[in-house]
Amino acid sequence: MRVRKRKGAEEHLKNHPQLVVFQPEKFKGRWRELFGNDRPIHIEIGTGKGAFISGMALKNPEINYIGIDMQVSVLSYALDKVLASQAENVRLLLADGSDLRHFFAAEEVDLLYLNFSDPWPKTKHEKRRLTYKTFLGTYQHILPEKGEIHFKTDNRSLFEYSLVSFSQYGMLLNKVWLDLHASDFTGNVMTEYEEKFAEKGQVIYRVEAQFR
Amino acid sequence: MRVRKRKGAEEHLKNHPQLVVFQPEKFKGRWRELFGNDRPIHIEIGTGKGAFISGMALKNPEINYIGIDMQVSVLSYALDKVLASQAENVRLLLADGSDLRHFFAAEEVDLLYLNFSDPWPKTKHEKRRLTYKTFLGTYQHILPEKGEIHFKTDNRSLFEYSLVSFSQYGMLLNKVWLDLHASDFTGNVMTEYEEKFAEKGQVIYRVEAQFR
Ligand SMILES: C[S@@+](CC[C@H](N)C(=O)[O-])C[C@H]1O[C@@H](n2cnc3c(N)ncnc32)[C@H](O)[C@@H]1O
Ligand SMILES: C[S@@+](CC[C@H](N)C(=O)[O-])C[C@H]1O[C@@H](n2cnc3c(N)ncnc32)[C@H](O)[C@@H]1O
Repeated sequence: MRVRKRKGAEEHLKNHPQLVVFQPEKFKGRWRELFGNDRPIHIEIGTGKGAFISGMALKNPEINYIGIDMQVSVLSYALDKVLASQAENVRLLLADGSDLRHFFAAEEVDLLYLNFSDPWPKTKHEKRRLTYKTFLGTYQHILPEKGEIHFKTDNRSLFEYSLVSFSQYGMLLNKVWLDLHASDFTGNVMTEYEEKFAEKGQVIYRVEAQFR
Repeated sequence: MRVRKRKGAEEHLKNHPQLVVFQPEKFKGRWRELFGNDRPIHIEIGTGKGAFISGMALKNPEINYIGIDMQVSVLSYALDKVLASQAENVRLLLADGSDLRHFFAAEEVDLLYLNFSDPWPKTKHEKRRLTYKTFLGTYQHILPEKGEIHFKTDNRSLFEYSLVSFSQYGMLLNKVWLDLHASDFTGNVMTEYEEKFAEKGQVIYRVEAQFR
């Protein structure tokens, strides 16, 4: 996501310490404490401008959500969305999600969302794709046994790649949508990218994959 | 495939006993004898009018091909194609491919193709889909360890279903194409249905799945 630098973005984030976590490693193993309850924790890596995480939080008050992005300006827009939503069950992390084991204890996260992740189309950049096997290894660690990844994208190559990557890693595909918006999937919460690509008439792919 | 009854179709098939096999159970375990060599055997279930199987046979003389269909009229058109191609490495079976263990010994088949299989969209007909788990069981029996199924279709629901069915059966997805004709896949041999749907601008899906 290319976003122009937003003036005062960092200050904006810092002004909301109850919502924005700058040093997530401090909460490793203690996220339920932070939320003050024992509800399931669902996270999104590359949360972007936050439409998904704030929308999900409003819809599902019985779940705690954590949106992670490493871009200050981008996350500052997500903060706007979270503030506007008044949802209390969502936190934002300013962090690089490359190794989530730094931030989360084993099995601390109940579900992981990837939405419109950067496609890194060149083969030499395969290792940067968030569905590359090393990432899957970190997700497996922080998720429970049989934990799930829910992934959607408009990017055909990345989706083809990811189905194969999940499968080769030993994960099960539980459900696949090759045109989410034409399907009977109910309650879809759109991301910013999803809005944009759907408007252009592009197909949206989705998969629910499970570790075993 | 809805095809009008073709006059004389059965006689046509019977007139070519060197190409058309009516009692395939007789050759169980002896297909290599029938072909007179030890080359790999690739089969297609629901071969239709035969463009794929005859095209593949011409392209790959080092492989033996068997096209299976249960409709007399349909198979008689496939016979026309095989005759026109003059390929010697292909046979046609007039048979119901529901339980291939009747026709093939364990591990006798090296690769199995499914092309544009009947979608059976209603849930109550799930068991009739050629990628339903009971079919996968019969395929696994006649294929070698790590044997592969190569499947293509234009039907989105059937493809979504099949990816999940392969995965849940324990198969690996080795490669997935969500728009075969826009991909860099080379040497694609089109089927009759593929020609028809591609002309209408429909996307063609393809997957290579492997037992393990
Ligand atoms: C293409 S955008 C999609 C944003 C949002 N999910 C949507 O669908 O609208 C990808 C986002 O992932 C973030 N991102 C990429 N790699 C990341 C990483 N390793 N850790 C955290 N965020 C990352 C980028 O900063 C960017 O905001
Ligand atoms: C939709 S057509 C596709 C034909 C061809 N593969 C193509 O792509 O043009 C499906 C074909 O599968 C055949 N078929 C369906 N079930 C079968 C079965 N159990 N055994 C043999 N053939 C079958 C039908 O007779 C029909 O010709």
